[in-house]
Amino acid sequence: MVGLKHVGEAKLSVSRRQRATPYTPRVAALGVTDYSVVNHTILPKGFGRSTAEDYWHLRSAVQIWDVGCQRQVEIRGRDAARLAQYLTPRDLSAAEVGQCLYAPLIDDDAGMLNDPIVLRLAEDRFWLSIADADILLWARGLAHGLGFEVEIEEPDVWPLAVQGPRADSLVVRVFGESLRELPFFRFVMVPFGERPLLVARTGYSLQGGFEIYVDGFERGPQVWDALWAAGREFDLAPGSPNLIERIEGGLLSYGNEMTRDNNPLECNLDRFCRLDGGIDCIGLSALQHIAETGPARRIRGLRFDGDPCPPCQHAWPVQVNGNFAGQVTSAIWSPRFEQNVALAMLERKHWDEGTGVSIDCGDGSLRHGFVCDLPMEET
Amino acid sequence: MVGLKHVGEAKLSVSRRQRATPYTPRVAALGVTDYSVVNHTILPKGFGRSTAEDYWHLRSAVQIWDVGCQRQVEIRGRDAARLAQYLTPRDLSAAEVGQCLYAPLIDDDAGMLNDPIVLRLAEDRFWLSIADADILLWARGLAHGLGFEVEIEEPDVWPLAVQGPRADSLVVRVFGESLRELPFFRFVMVPFGERPLLVARTGYSLQGGFEIYVDGFERGPQVWDALWAAGREFDLAPGSPNLIERIEGGLLSYGNEMTRDNNPLECNLDRFCRLDGGIDCIGLSALQHIAETGPARRIRGLRFDGDPCPPCQHAWPVQVNGNFAGQVTSAIWSPRFEQNVALAMLERKHWDEGTGVSIDCGDGSLRHGFVCDLPMEET
Repeated sequence: MVGLKHVGEAKLSVSRRQRATPYTPRVAALGVTDYSVVNHTILPKGFGRSTAEDYWHLRSAVQIWDVGCQRQVEIRGRDAARLAQYLTPRDLSAAEVGQCLYAPLIDDDAGMLNDPIVLRLAEDRFWLSIADADILLWARGLAHGLGFEVEIEEPDVWPLAVQGPRADSLVVRVFGESLRELPFFRFVMVPFGERPLLVARTGYSLQGGFEIYVDGFERGPQVWDALWAAGREFDLAPGSPNLIERIEGGLLSYGNEMTRDNNPLECNLDRFCRLDGGIDCIGLSALQHIAETGPARRIRGLRFDGDPCPPCQHAWPVQVNGNFAGQVTSAIWSPRFEQNVALAMLERKHWDEGTGVSIDCGDGSLRHGFVCDLPMEET
Repeated sequence: MVGLKHVGEAKLSVSRRQRATPYTPRVAALGVTDYSVVNHTILPKGFGRSTAEDYWHLRSAVQIWDVGCQRQVEIRGRDAARLAQYLTPRDLSAAEVGQCLYAPLIDDDAGMLNDPIVLRLAEDRFWLSIADADILLWARGLAHGLGFEVEIEEPDVWPLAVQGPRADSLVVRVFGESLRELPFFRFVMVPFGERPLLVARTGYSLQGGFEIYVDGFERGPQVWDALWAAGREFDLAPGSPNLIERIEGGLLSYGNEMTRDNNPLECNLDRFCRLDGGIDCIGLSALQHIAETGPARRIRGLRFDGDPCPPCQHAWPVQVNGNFAGQVTSAIWSPRFEQNVALAMLERKHWDEGTGVSIDCGDGSLRHGFVCDLPMEET
């Protein structure tokens, strides 16, 4: 796979199909340099600083992220709870209004389709805040075929993340004291302008923070500007989900660590799967069958030597003593560990902590490293 | 929306989630400068020449396009024909093995979900060669809910397009004489290496050409190299779907000209909709209801004055005498017409050919133009 070096140096082509968010003009004015595309929507990924610089800042201050690409699938109506449960092996029966639940979505073969945060807005109304796949089509297809009485739409909601150790101070300044005591994975409505805003203590980092579900495209710039104005004294900077931080923290990315070819147990999501038959979920029997013998592979951490590795655009083969042991799914240089760090899907006989591995990053040299637990700890 | 100028100057971030194709190393070696993302897969969009230079070349010679992002949804099994028909208002009952059919896909509200080419591979086996949306999830959800006996997968198939007036000469040279007489929207198997290749006379341009459905990721470079080696004498160049050519030709792009908010009649796809009730399609009654009064808006061409317009990243408002008349969905400068050209969704009272319009491209100036038929003709 030599010759891939130009990918990552090419520009993202502009069209209406890659949707802008309410924050796109703000992000552009701040000098965005890199985009990804998630859910047919652009995701800012860089602002001219290195990923390492962004990483240290995220760990020490506070960042504002345009994550409008986290689209919502709203399910409401008489059978909303029934359909939401049918999509996931996580038991949602005790989910309370105001609660956020991380929930693997699976198909009839127990293949991973997504890993949204489920927000219970009302007894009969849910949002699935999704990673990169058209779950709206999946949910609508199922609902139609099964004759469920639900309405399923993508609402005009554009999440904005505030992440980092100083996130509490910033959001309390902007939205009031009620957020200080908000428990992890809970949401509340806070006053803002002409109508309240939904704010959740969630986010795609391990540094703490919030996600603001801005309802109404036209309100987006107002919320951004309010945070930006208050942010100076907290060293607020624009940022994005940080690859170093998420690999060290063991946060999964749908499409990278897992696809339809993987089941939730391979993704270490065992604790989000109720396997005793007490729920009605589409892939449950397939998942029970897998659980009987246990998954054949699992996501693990890797730390490995050599120069900073190239971007991981295809799955890199991992070997143990010359035998196939799995594949790297995401990788980058960690300035904290002064080593490369990776997430990898490793075969059962090779997944134990401390196992020595060789990794082919596709740049001509074989790197040596070892398996580690997640999240990664300083040794 | 001032401030958008940085979008389109930003790089595409690399990850495994934005899948590479078998042709990615070839494309990189040829100096790709721009990518789009379609179906979670990268689509090369530029090679350092202007869109106008690519346009003239496409109209006079032959280009090879990495359209591996046109993923296939394979539907096979006892109910395959039944499910394929359920997805589209186009009557597929007379579809022959070897035939390609352009088919709008709709939901229960008659909203457009996609506009694939359907290839009938066997009586009970279809490929849907899709635009940007996870139709696999939609089809699997419906099939599960309805209890249809089908298998639905994304096969290991990576389309490669050969487009332009010299395409016939090139493919005949590489794959043999059988392709010379291949009718439009038909496919055949041609000999190549260890097993035959499926080649169709189709493609996303009006310049003629073929799409090669390369089965097996590992075969991709072999097919590319065979075409490349033979292409010198035909002035073969790498290219991509060309925005000027497709707008002038009236070729629609899902996500740009149409979304779930549009029905097939708004997209001028009337001739692909059987409305008399003779087929069983999911959104048929909703579509019949729309057809009774006719669509409220339709896609039309626009030609308008002023300097070359900026890239169209959001829908530009169109006015007639100060009243809302619709929105531009795609636009670019045409070097042939020496005018800007656009596709636009226009309200019924404003869609007649020759209607004078004003367009707000978001760059501060109002442009003046007129409605034209599609494909656009030189006047």
